[in-house]
Amino acid sequence: MKALIISADNFEDSELLFPYYRLKEEGSEIDIASIKKVRIKGKHGYEVEVSKTLKEINPDDYDILILPGGKAPEAIRKEKEALDISRSFFGRNKPVAAICHGPQILITAGVLKGRHATCYKSVAEEMREAGAVYEDKEVVVDGNLVTSRQPSDLPSFMRETILALKPKK
Amino acid sequence: MKALIISADNFEDSELLFPYYRLKEEGSEIDIASIKKVRIKGKHGYEVEVSKTLKEINPDDYDILILPGGKAPEAIRKEKEALDISRSFFGRNKPVAAICHGPQILITAGVLKGRHATCYKSVAEEMREAGAVYEDKEVVVDGNLVTSRQPSDLPSFMRETILALKPKK
Repeated sequence: MKALIISADNFEDSELLFPYYRLKEEGSEIDIASIKKVRIKGKHGYEVEVSKTLKEINPDDYDILILPGGKAPEAIRKEKEALDISRSFFGRNKPVAAICHGPQILITAGVLKGRHATCYKSVAEEMREAGAVYEDKEVVVDGNLVTSRQPSDLPSFMRETILALKPKK
Repeated sequence: MKALIISADNFEDSELLFPYYRLKEEGSEIDIASIKKVRIKGKHGYEVEVSKTLKEINPDDYDILILPGGKAPEAIRKEKEALDISRSFFGRNKPVAAICHGPQILITAGVLKGRHATCYKSVAEEMREAGAVYEDKEVVVDGNLVTSRQPSDLPSFMRETILALKPKK
């Protein structure tokens, strides 16, 4: 199993680190992709190594896309490659898990129309404008899409994200 | 299932938050105990609410003890109640999971003699002096005791910690 995390400087540290460690616990390989191949720094000062630039990513190589929050999504949503990668996951119905400000990338990618989802409360308005059915719940699962609101939702977020990776019964 | 985390100010944020979220994901109830019932702050600025003082803890109420690292264990090891709680878990052979500087509490409690364990590299010497068999591995499991060295070991640490909670076959 191979996971792709897309983020940038000023990520919400726990929203990147918890999924990263949790998927490693599950035995997953993980690439962290960003605009440049540098170390990126979270709002709380944690640093992680970027293993690939967005340009280097072939989304077909990955089983799941993780979009952490913080201020990073505001930068990432301006990157055409990040939007194309997101659309590819939706096109192939592969799991996408986005938390807090992470769904901003999906809003810009235009993949949320008619989809049930949640996000950080300040993002709710633009999520509705993008045609999504916003729900104020700790985790919302709609097909391939898993979304949560904030760090305190991480336990439910990762429970559903791991479930999304299991073969359907 | 009920878990007890003992920590204090200047905890290593990810070493408290990852086990906390991971055990919540598993459906566990969790108490965070410290010297006073206040909010404690990690080295990276994350804050968590202390639900009980050490004095209020009856170790028989819990299935597992988690000891995160950072500078917190240096303060906690001076607290008689924390040492008594640790000894109670060992006396009843219940899981104890300690990472980084967390094992310092177990060193002072005198429960590591003859036990295989690991810890942050700067703690290795005093761990050996306490009679433990120190191993430089990402996770060491010896009976009820699960230990790891540092944040990057968290995936293995929690994989083994969760296993330690499952009924033995």
